[in-house]
Amino acid sequence: MSLGEFDLIDTYFRRPPRKAALGVGDDCALLETPAGLQLAVSCDTLVAGRHFRADVDPRSLGHKALAVNLSDLAACGADPSAFLLALTLPRIDEAFLAAFSEGLWTLADRYAMDLVGGDTTSGPLALTITVFGHVPRGQALLRSGARAGDDVWVSGTLGDARLALEVQRSRLSAATPALLDAARARLDWPSPRVALGQALRGVASAAVDVSDGLLADLGHVVEASSRAAGLRLGARIDAGALPLSEGVAALAPTWQLDCALAGGDDYELCFTAPARLATAVEAAAGTAGVPVTRIGRIEAGGGVQVLQADGRRIEREFGGFDHFLS
Amino acid sequence: MSLGEFDLIDTYFRRPPRKAALGVGDDCALLETPAGLQLAVSCDTLVAGRHFRADVDPRSLGHKALAVNLSDLAACGADPSAFLLALTLPRIDEAFLAAFSEGLWTLADRYAMDLVGGDTTSGPLALTITVFGHVPRGQALLRSGARAGDDVWVSGTLGDARLALEVQRSRLSAATPALLDAARARLDWPSPRVALGQALRGVASAAVDVSDGLLADLGHVVEASSRAAGLRLGARIDAGALPLSEGVAALAPTWQLDCALAGGDDYELCFTAPARLATAVEAAAGTAGVPVTRIGRIEAGGGVQVLQADGRRIEREFGGFDHFLS
Repeated sequence: MSLGEFDLIDTYFRRPPRKAALGVGDDCALLETPAGLQLAVSCDTLVAGRHFRADVDPRSLGHKALAVNLSDLAACGADPSAFLLALTLPRIDEAFLAAFSEGLWTLADRYAMDLVGGDTTSGPLALTITVFGHVPRGQALLRSGARAGDDVWVSGTLGDARLALEVQRSRLSAATPALLDAARARLDWPSPRVALGQALRGVASAAVDVSDGLLADLGHVVEASSRAAGLRLGARIDAGALPLSEGVAALAPTWQLDCALAGGDDYELCFTAPARLATAVEAAAGTAGVPVTRIGRIEAGGGVQVLQADGRRIEREFGGFDHFLS
Repeated sequence: MSLGEFDLIDTYFRRPPRKAALGVGDDCALLETPAGLQLAVSCDTLVAGRHFRADVDPRSLGHKALAVNLSDLAACGADPSAFLLALTLPRIDEAFLAAFSEGLWTLADRYAMDLVGGDTTSGPLALTITVFGHVPRGQALLRSGARAGDDVWVSGTLGDARLALEVQRSRLSAATPALLDAARARLDWPSPRVALGQALRGVASAAVDVSDGLLADLGHVVEASSRAAGLRLGARIDAGALPLSEGVAALAPTWQLDCALAGGDDYELCFTAPARLATAVEAAAGTAGVPVTRIGRIEAGGGVQVLQADGRRIEREFGGFDHFLS
């Protein structure tokens, strides 16, 4: 006998809330926002065949669905508190749900997050998670705060998920099986940079998470900051400074740049900070236990440019990932 | 040339926020919760082919997607403030988006709600809306507050959406074209009972919105209240008291009960209140401009029973709507 919607929720998704005033089971959940804090909210949808393969490990899918949302909280410097799960399933598959919920809860537990509600429907496999986090009023990291002269930084390494994806598509091969495994882990089990985002409050002038590719996401920072400053800003990226894993570094130079600059699914933080705060940035990274690399600078004047070691601009286009254009 | 994701958001979904600290365009939106209030949150997904026909009027889809979520806020007595929209589209269709967003904004404007963020992806047509509302701390209407002896009330009329659906399926016909139009309007343009929910704070002991059918949703109230009270409660519904539109009242008696008791998509409020507060209930309904009808009583002892005019229990089963069982 198959589970109905309510049994499904009881079995896999209902736990007593740790922080929320009211969790799963009523028409709404109730959340408290302590005095002096703002609530940061974001949602992301993952669709089968578009964001993950139908044969994905359901544990990694549960992890990744929450991780990509946590990455948005990280980019704001918020402290995760709760989430909603809207799950659309073609049929009730208990093995899938058991593994999916295990991956989801393992990551949620790391941040003591409550699953406070959601919806289950039948239809083509897709899931939307809405995350909630808290940030001290006025201290959220925004895309719009970069100023000319600020350094541009990025956490971790870039391009690993794209490498794994291109191997899946048989367009690339990794240098060794171990390097392929490492790249696949980055694609399937991304690490949202939550601690780094929080440590960068009061230090970074702007931040974004790298989900569509470095150039596209840094472009959002430049655009939002240009609007906020009322003048046209740009960014100059030093190709030689891009932090690459061993797997990406072993690729042909053209592929290195495609993966690192337009890879997508990195879930690293790209952020800016005044040059005088470089030491504070390093300290924040040390606190969070995440390496950061200075890769360029915000400038007056438009566009995001990528320069080779000899200072020459790389002229070819790097397309960002857009679900409607790709 | 087609619109990309960012153009799409700019064109149809970006407006300056009225209440939110930060709206569309960053990694997260930022919301304030004024002192003394709790944030009520809920999300619902609508999937093409399951919750609406592929040939639905996109304006009504925009309305309904937000309305079904507002209905959850109404059931908690919350004051709507903002929402997130996660939209999955097979392709960019500007005529669809223009009409969809018009229906969405018309309803959002009625409550001065901000669209503060979301996600757009490509895939099978589906949408998930997350709504936010405020409620004074401790005053939210919950499913768990019903007590033996409380009256059971319902707003508006029941079964109209089911009538329209069964006509679409060629299983029923309406008595007149005007009655069919009225039923279709209830299916496609539901009216969330937001003002009634707020007016019932401090009056109703429990509330739920009728989305899965009266018996199923009242069953949730009885179950949650039994758990909270630590004893087994039930409800007795008087079939003759059920508020029916002219269209549903014109159906054969068996169909009347199927539509009114297990119809689904009603988006009325079913609520309970101590008998001594009946006048206060009527006053709240008057304030909200929504008719309410007393249809039964909460009792000690299990189950939801439906009684005929002669007091005999109607023994046949009325199945609630469950997306995985239907």
